[in-house]
Amino acid sequence: MTHVSGRHFLQIPGPSPVPDRVLRAMSAQVIDHRSPEFGELGLEALAAIKTIFKTTQDVIIYPSSGTGAWEAALANVLREGDSVLMYETGHFATLWKKMAEKLGIEAEFIGGDWRSGADPDQIEQRLRADSGHKIKAVCVVHNETSTGSVSPIADVRRALDAAGHPALLMVDTISGLGSIDFRFDEWGVDVAVSGSQKGLMLPPGISFNAVSAKAVEVSKAGGTRRSYWDWHDMIAINAKGYFPYTPATNMLYGLVEAIKMMHEEGLDTIFARHQRHGAATRAAVRAWGLDVLCNRQGHESGVLTAVVMPEGHSADHFRSEALRHYNISLGSGLSKVADKIFRIGHLGDINDLTLIGALSGVEMGLAKAKVPHEKGGVGVAMQYLQETPAPGIDA
Amino acid sequence: MTHVSGRHFLQIPGPSPVPDRVLRAMSAQVIDHRSPEFGELGLEALAAIKTIFKTTQDVIIYPSSGTGAWEAALANVLREGDSVLMYETGHFATLWKKMAEKLGIEAEFIGGDWRSGADPDQIEQRLRADSGHKIKAVCVVHNETSTGSVSPIADVRRALDAAGHPALLMVDTISGLGSIDFRFDEWGVDVAVSGSQKGLMLPPGISFNAVSAKAVEVSKAGGTRRSYWDWHDMIAINAKGYFPYTPATNMLYGLVEAIKMMHEEGLDTIFARHQRHGAATRAAVRAWGLDVLCNRQGHESGVLTAVVMPEGHSADHFRSEALRHYNISLGSGLSKVADKIFRIGHLGDINDLTLIGALSGVEMGLAKAKVPHEKGGVGVAMQYLQETPAPGIDA
Amino acid sequence: MTHVSGRHFLQIPGPSPVPDRVLRAMSAQVIDHRSPEFGELGLEALAAIKTIFKTTQDVIIYPSSGTGAWEAALANVLREGDSVLMYETGHFATLWKKMAEKLGIEAEFIGGDWRSGADPDQIEQRLRADSGHKIKAVCVVHNETSTGSVSPIADVRRALDAAGHPALLMVDTISGLGSIDFRFDEWGVDVAVSGSQKGLMLPPGISFNAVSAKAVEVSKAGGTRRSYWDWHDMIAINAKGYFPYTPATNMLYGLVEAIKMMHEEGLDTIFARHQRHGAATRAAVRAWGLDVLCNRQGHESGVLTAVVMPEGHSADHFRSEALRHYNISLGSGLSKVADKIFRIGHLGDINDLTLIGALSGVEMGLAKAKVPHEKGGVGVAMQYLQETPAPGIDA
Amino acid sequence: MTHVSGRHFLQIPGPSPVPDRVLRAMSAQVIDHRSPEFGELGLEALAAIKTIFKTTQDVIIYPSSGTGAWEAALANVLREGDSVLMYETGHFATLWKKMAEKLGIEAEFIGGDWRSGADPDQIEQRLRADSGHKIKAVCVVHNETSTGSVSPIADVRRALDAAGHPALLMVDTISGLGSIDFRFDEWGVDVAVSGSQKGLMLPPGISFNAVSAKAVEVSKAGGTRRSYWDWHDMIAINAKGYFPYTPATNMLYGLVEAIKMMHEEGLDTIFARHQRHGAATRAAVRAWGLDVLCNRQGHESGVLTAVVMPEGHSADHFRSEALRHYNISLGSGLSKVADKIFRIGHLGDINDLTLIGALSGVEMGLAKAKVPHEKGGVGVAMQYLQETPAPGIDA
Repeated sequence: MTHVSGRHFLQIPGPSPVPDRVLRAMSAQVIDHRSPEFGELGLEALAAIKTIFKTTQDVIIYPSSGTGAWEAALANVLREGDSVLMYETGHFATLWKKMAEKLGIEAEFIGGDWRSGADPDQIEQRLRADSGHKIKAVCVVHNETSTGSVSPIADVRRALDAAGHPALLMVDTISGLGSIDFRFDEWGVDVAVSGSQKGLMLPPGISFNAVSAKAVEVSKAGGTRRSYWDWHDMIAINAKGYFPYTPATNMLYGLVEAIKMMHEEGLDTIFARHQRHGAATRAAVRAWGLDVLCNRQGHESGVLTAVVMPEGHSADHFRSEALRHYNISLGSGLSKVADKIFRIGHLGDINDLTLIGALSGVEMGLAKAKVPHEKGGVGVAMQYLQETPAPGIDA
Repeated sequence: MTHVSGRHFLQIPGPSPVPDRVLRAMSAQVIDHRSPEFGELGLEALAAIKTIFKTTQDVIIYPSSGTGAWEAALANVLREGDSVLMYETGHFATLWKKMAEKLGIEAEFIGGDWRSGADPDQIEQRLRADSGHKIKAVCVVHNETSTGSVSPIADVRRALDAAGHPALLMVDTISGLGSIDFRFDEWGVDVAVSGSQKGLMLPPGISFNAVSAKAVEVSKAGGTRRSYWDWHDMIAINAKGYFPYTPATNMLYGLVEAIKMMHEEGLDTIFARHQRHGAATRAAVRAWGLDVLCNRQGHESGVLTAVVMPEGHSADHFRSEALRHYNISLGSGLSKVADKIFRIGHLGDINDLTLIGALSGVEMGLAKAKVPHEKGGVGVAMQYLQETPAPGIDA
Repeated sequence: MTHVSGRHFLQIPGPSPVPDRVLRAMSAQVIDHRSPEFGELGLEALAAIKTIFKTTQDVIIYPSSGTGAWEAALANVLREGDSVLMYETGHFATLWKKMAEKLGIEAEFIGGDWRSGADPDQIEQRLRADSGHKIKAVCVVHNETSTGSVSPIADVRRALDAAGHPALLMVDTISGLGSIDFRFDEWGVDVAVSGSQKGLMLPPGISFNAVSAKAVEVSKAGGTRRSYWDWHDMIAINAKGYFPYTPATNMLYGLVEAIKMMHEEGLDTIFARHQRHGAATRAAVRAWGLDVLCNRQGHESGVLTAVVMPEGHSADHFRSEALRHYNISLGSGLSKVADKIFRIGHLGDINDLTLIGALSGVEMGLAKAKVPHEKGGVGVAMQYLQETPAPGIDA
Repeated sequence: MTHVSGRHFLQIPGPSPVPDRVLRAMSAQVIDHRSPEFGELGLEALAAIKTIFKTTQDVIIYPSSGTGAWEAALANVLREGDSVLMYETGHFATLWKKMAEKLGIEAEFIGGDWRSGADPDQIEQRLRADSGHKIKAVCVVHNETSTGSVSPIADVRRALDAAGHPALLMVDTISGLGSIDFRFDEWGVDVAVSGSQKGLMLPPGISFNAVSAKAVEVSKAGGTRRSYWDWHDMIAINAKGYFPYTPATNMLYGLVEAIKMMHEEGLDTIFARHQRHGAATRAAVRAWGLDVLCNRQGHESGVLTAVVMPEGHSADHFRSEALRHYNISLGSGLSKVADKIFRIGHLGDINDLTLIGALSGVEMGLAKAKVPHEKGGVGVAMQYLQETPAPGIDA
């Protein structure tokens, strides 16, 4: 091990930095997962996560990464040959579609240019055309981690309703949950998928399915042959705070602590903070003379900002220089935009000074990598932060 | 939170107590799972776990509980309609069979009375009868956590060979690995399943599939439709120390540290320690005038000892009294033996004095619960420990 | 580093095992010792420690070991040439006397045989003889850590009163505080000295002076030239939760958490637990056919038990064998009783099973070291524990 | 507890941020301070700290704050009535003088304006005048924490030599050690005083005296009556890695780890890093149109920068606004410069991005507090950092 002075700036769009308080909570000794004490922990964790999804319905906690929760969502309600409508918001929407196909599901993609969230109008139009209701589910990514665009989920719900279509509404909010507003019950979502390592400020290792009564009903007769991902065994035994197989106990310690911290800060404060940091970051990017990948106003994410590299310059070389010189991790471009964009994460446990530190790492890194840009983005971001009231502090 | 003085005695057969050193290793800040630093961590973790399975072939690490690794093992090589031969060693063998059935696999059970490990002769006999080689795999539990019996895996291998049967040999060593000897390559195992929270001294949260070249070959064309559990995506990207989806980074920190500690102690020392503690525990049980559930000499486990309650007495009431009075968790009887037995875990990070403390909790707990027994089991165990050379201490 | 399986049994009479919860509290990031947040921490810590001394007067917290707090106690009220009356309860009383002499104080010793606490009658007698009130202070050790004898402080107070003597009553309760009852205000103590690493369940590093208004008054004109140990600078700035020089911030985190835990358990429960464990230990010692050093009934300590080795056997050899074979630390005999006794600590964060584990380490260690003894002490202690209601659990 | 998002920026000139790795090392269970294992720890800690003082002579480790080590330094070699020559570099030099006076020492002060380090010429001149060698010691502060000025210790040594004066050279390097170069042996220092919470990256709680053979010789016959601070008891028992009274064990764990990390980074790299960060900070300050308190070129500190507030503006109001809005702690002005200056710490475990984050907190805080200043200091610091090769990164 070689010590390098100072803290690493983990500015990828997840995993996000884990607060020390959460790491300490997680370092408690493991307990018997069938003990009375565990039952209390389980009930506390399950109640807590519901407040974040804003639901009174069931939330399933899997010991798995978010990818597992994607599979769980699909496998519980869809089977080989079923049709689903998906929306190409970016790399992760594409991966979810590929997964559906691997499971034998017929996945239809509404194409997108990776620069905005889903368009509810197109979804409505497509659903209206499906008069036979062959489409069993509509799958949308809430916050597309690969591009920094947000889909308007409430509007997608309205699109389903307007089309009078009975398909389930399934939403990937892996990187959105806990950073930007998400309202499972109010928005009429049927299945929501999320993970621990983003807005929840935990290490990766557990993932979630929030499920509506309607989805649970569908899953009873339907879905793929499944065992690990099955909702029913979970829901039954969760009632007493236990799990059908050994849960990731120490992650649950962390989950309870992290959600306690989130409510201490206040969910609305958290959402406003992410918005404000997103705006400051975009201001910096534009001052550098660079493009923000998301070009649809209102769809820009408070979670991350994807930045388009000038033609002829390698985003990965830049990221590598920034890492080497300034000990900052930035997100890479994925698949279609590989090496063409980089991503700045501004989610989770950060504050104004961390953001400025991170943006200075980008600005100085651009210089080190000899990427053409205007100086002064950091100054513009500082101006924005200083002039824009900070939620929970000013006001 | 209410403080109760002193450390809890976690004497269930897993999760086992996590050493402070591992908890500290796990409390390091999360890092970018696509960074060069992570690549080194991944390679280190993958190399380390192979030394524990005693294999040079591939080991897959899943963010999941051991149950997930069971499903992964089945799904990669078996599909709906395939036949497997399983052996009823106890509750967990039964659960694995039920899982296979849920996945549509035809699972044939060689019945057992839950008081011994698998009988290789019966397996050989059944395989010889399967002249058409309809059986695709033989599934055996190495250390049956519900009963404390060990199956002779090397002999099962010999049974397959003697029968000239090409079935894959699949072994659940969830609670055996790292506590009692297991030799993936030497014993010709094709798929081994394990988890983090037993002999590896970690919290629950990651699980393993060790896979032979033969199994990988079978999986290429075969197996169930799958995504999360698929070996191929894993093996491909593992070559550089990365994972196809976000890994449980902090668990990997712990894994590397725990395996480092295991080699510091020495695998042979570890195995001998578990044997010695098992023998001391059985001596105590017999001195109390109680029966050890495993009644087949040579099959008794070094991981845990299941104890049969006297007729008319509730094992669960006893466990609850022991917990209340002495802050010790003991394992319950599961399904067929519910309330009829209790289980004493003596695996993982424990030593002679912890074991005596635990056995004293059992002996005093029996008195508190008014279970008929002879006093003096603790004294007999002390006698055994003092007279039997301790591996790694008394040369 | 070489891993040895299982937890070390730290059964010396301090430092005592630090609960994980305290270690976690202490691992929080250091904060600005002049910030508003620190002021709150300081006030909380100072208020908390007063509840343990049972005083509404001032308690000073020093970044130092207990030895520093001894010096502070002397230096604030005594100067070169002043006379003090001390009582030879054992090694630590002797060391305190030597320290007084180093500081130029005339220290008179009432001799003792190290097998009991202080005798109030002798103190009264000596004070009555001091008609000129030359003696400025009476110094007594509450719990003599080197011998396991307790001095009856309330009776010593009564002795001073009966003699009508104005000397200050100064008490070393380094190893007593938080394990056996201590009542600063009710007992009329003027200066009490303590440390963090015993009943308070913290690592060593901070120490305490509880000071009466009378002692503070004496210190204003009197005492030795001093700076670091001066009470006045402390008391003045403590009023707002700050300290005159940089405090040991992380130890204060631990102090607040530890005292919170103590109140969760309940002080009376804690004291009864120590009494009960002391009695169980003495029962074991006697069953082994060995002598408890403290031979004055009613003076036996709940904190530790000193055991006399059979003639011709080395206590240190025994301790070394116990450490090697059973990973248990026992206290050595100090100065006059070096190699002739060993000490079993049963203070702080322990419970019945830890105690039995420790006693089994002693019993098996005696066998390994070939020290003549009867077997069965552990069984006798178990009997005692099982039959004697445990405070906070039974009752 | 109320969670505020993101990490606090602890930018006072000590305590400095403690690396997670050190906090984890410190959270290990306490061990028996008389065990063989402790002896190894003690020897390792003592050997390690000598590499930082650059000495082969003795270093004493006290469980105390740095103030205690000041007293220890004085008390071991000076007694009531002895004369010492001190130099008024700022608040801490003044406090040390007051402490000497409290101990009855005649302390003569060479006055200074708090804007530079000590002037060796004035010292030489004064020593030449002391033909009777009444002055027993010359006391100088290496890095004056209250002002950010560095005294040229090697030149002070030359001044003593040039004057042919036998006085001891005593140096307070509490905030200098481990951040700027210090060479105990090469510079002929006799007593050096330091603490844990600055360049050593530890919490406060232990402090140091490095002592020359000459100083030890003086202390044998001389010094004040003392016990806790006495060097001799320490040196004697330190030879085997033990301490005369209970040491602060967990701080020693941290010390060993921190020094290991320092050598991983490299002492020269550390010193160059502090220099570079000091220069960047001063560039920012000047760009804001503000004055750096230290006005003597070559004396500016790499540890901290003190900034003079514009006339009529309160430094404390500014600091309080910066804390409230940006969660950053800055150092206050002390005594003579209270409310007139603020101090930016840039020592210990920080890096370029942390520094920029901190400076942005100052710049935005100045705006929030309506302190007149030019914008752009952060940009100038970024320019400096980007253009100036970073030690250990840009070879």
